[in-house]
Amino acid sequence: MSAGIVEEKSVTFEQGIRLDSGRILSPVRIVYETYGTLDSSASNAILVEHAWTGNAHLAGKYNENDLKPGWWNEITGPGRLLDTDRYFVICSNVIGSCYGSTGPASINPRTGKRYNLTFPVITVRDMVRAQKFLIEHLGIERLLSVMGGSMGGMQAQEWATQYPDSISSAIVLASSPRPSPQAIAMNSIARWAIFNDPNWRKGEYRQNPKDGLALARGIGHITFLSDDSMNAKFGRRFSAKDGFFDFFGQFEVERYLNYNGYNFVERFDANSFLYLAKALDLYDLSWGYDSMADALGKIAAPMQFFAFSSDWLYPPYQTGEVVDIMKKMGKEVEYHMIDSSYGHDAFLLEHETFTPLIRRFLEKAEAKG
Amino acid sequence: MSAGIVEEKSVTFEQGIRLDSGRILSPVRIVYETYGTLDSSASNAILVEHAWTGNAHLAGKYNENDLKPGWWNEITGPGRLLDTDRYFVICSNVIGSCYGSTGPASINPRTGKRYNLTFPVITVRDMVRAQKFLIEHLGIERLLSVMGGSMGGMQAQEWATQYPDSISSAIVLASSPRPSPQAIAMNSIARWAIFNDPNWRKGEYRQNPKDGLALARGIGHITFLSDDSMNAKFGRRFSAKDGFFDFFGQFEVERYLNYNGYNFVERFDANSFLYLAKALDLYDLSWGYDSMADALGKIAAPMQFFAFSSDWLYPPYQTGEVVDIMKKMGKEVEYHMIDSSYGHDAFLLEHETFTPLIRRFLEKAEAKG
Repeated sequence: MSAGIVEEKSVTFEQGIRLDSGRILSPVRIVYETYGTLDSSASNAILVEHAWTGNAHLAGKYNENDLKPGWWNEITGPGRLLDTDRYFVICSNVIGSCYGSTGPASINPRTGKRYNLTFPVITVRDMVRAQKFLIEHLGIERLLSVMGGSMGGMQAQEWATQYPDSISSAIVLASSPRPSPQAIAMNSIARWAIFNDPNWRKGEYRQNPKDGLALARGIGHITFLSDDSMNAKFGRRFSAKDGFFDFFGQFEVERYLNYNGYNFVERFDANSFLYLAKALDLYDLSWGYDSMADALGKIAAPMQFFAFSSDWLYPPYQTGEVVDIMKKMGKEVEYHMIDSSYGHDAFLLEHETFTPLIRRFLEKAEAKG
Repeated sequence: MSAGIVEEKSVTFEQGIRLDSGRILSPVRIVYETYGTLDSSASNAILVEHAWTGNAHLAGKYNENDLKPGWWNEITGPGRLLDTDRYFVICSNVIGSCYGSTGPASINPRTGKRYNLTFPVITVRDMVRAQKFLIEHLGIERLLSVMGGSMGGMQAQEWATQYPDSISSAIVLASSPRPSPQAIAMNSIARWAIFNDPNWRKGEYRQNPKDGLALARGIGHITFLSDDSMNAKFGRRFSAKDGFFDFFGQFEVERYLNYNGYNFVERFDANSFLYLAKALDLYDLSWGYDSMADALGKIAAPMQFFAFSSDWLYPPYQTGEVVDIMKKMGKEVEYHMIDSSYGHDAFLLEHETFTPLIRRFLEKAEAKG
């Protein structure tokens, strides 16, 4: 069953937070949604973390006429994996984003203007720092689980290492302890595409710089898919609308990137895109520690990792390295390498490959309390 | 030994050529270089094909003070693989390029203006069609060999299928019978980057649209390298010049793409880049045939193929498919899958992995005559 009609909530922390960069961000507003009911001992809460361009709208609809449910609707609701009859499920929009939480498009109360590029560079650890305030605000000392894919998985990893005693388990899908230079290179091209757009105006635009942002998103889509999935989806088909020898003629795959790129402009802010791309590239689980092992040594909760064989953005070997170190340390860790042709996007497309495994893992965590 | 001091030559074919698109390109000028001496029976000629942004300057220097020798200088010269004491080596600039052969920046004699986007869309087969005129002009009926990497390998494949009786052997490195949608997607992003540059003006620029072209080239560099080679070359090092939390701070890999992108603007024409990117994407060895097998059935000469394990632009499985079909048909074919971390660029960087194998293959072709 679906999570039904849901509503967006928000909370503002006037004192703000001190960021990894040393700068203070204040106030910090966080937009979030919750599904299900927190039990009397506040022990059934699961925090779900969204990816790069996601938001707090995990599941359900805002009203009867709402055509599009939340982004992980298929696994959230009564009787589903994230069973809202059983769990109190929370999803919040990360800081830096443009879906209500404080980000570059927010008004800086000290100037009365949008932050734009005066917004501080934030890290994934900063996102989680802000979430900790939210969780405390909701009266939760310890989360039953924290889970997410891609950037969401990075956040789950940060919860596990930064707040080891505040979670009973963590689930990481299609993520990385630190993206490789190839992933950084792809994001750097996306940034460059926006910087090149004269309408970007160093962040001081009134309307999204659409050509640059659409192109940047097109690059993202390439990293979300795989050679296999593109072959299955598009092959080498040439757009039927175009002549094969037209200079501007497009292959189907080209048209797809274009179409999705320009659609994205309607829903996401260019500066937020840049700040979050930066957070992804800077992400290093071991940042501030002597080594990856030193960072992973902090983990107290059981962890479950999923990697997808055709994910070339965050290839399985990266998650494999984390798991190996944890195993050597005797940490409680499960690793599932799912054979999939869907690339990075598999975590959003192939629920059936991981939901039974997560269900079992969550039940174990719940039994332990 | 080096090929020494060399000079650029050219020839113009006034009658022009009929292109795959059905359009006529006339006149067709071809710039080329030759090294060594054609023997009395004109049986020692090897045609070397350049890649996307290459040119006819294969080896040697233009004068004593010339700092940069030709692009495959290391393997060309007396005693080298392409032994100029033994072979008559030819390299010509492809049509559509900007190094002297007829391309979009050439003057259309019918208008007195640069072609720009009125230049016809050309194919790899068209490039080879023009080369056939050059080879005949040089008094050569049959080439001892034709060889090249990447787009150069596509040209070698076209020689083998379109002019089977005009070659005694063909050597294909790091190439593809038809690029996959992932490769097309990367090129489509590069095209898009140029289209987005307001200075491109639909091809009617006076000066290269530098931001768009540099970005397009940056994308190319990502496809030429590999995750492994980027890890070895840059890792996750952050540029020492930048602060880690600077909005415009760059990783080393990002700086590399930027630096090489802007350097490229000085040497290559944006419209040529677009036309050749298009030719790469449209490339299909089987175009006009019922099947790949039907096309490969035309081949009469022995062929040698090299693929490089970490090449994700034209992954080894693509060459493997061609080789499998040829073997089933009983064609004379050699396939070497070279284990390399250098990605697509391996064919320009790791000569030692393939030169002994090519030497042996060439000697066999020579012995057969």
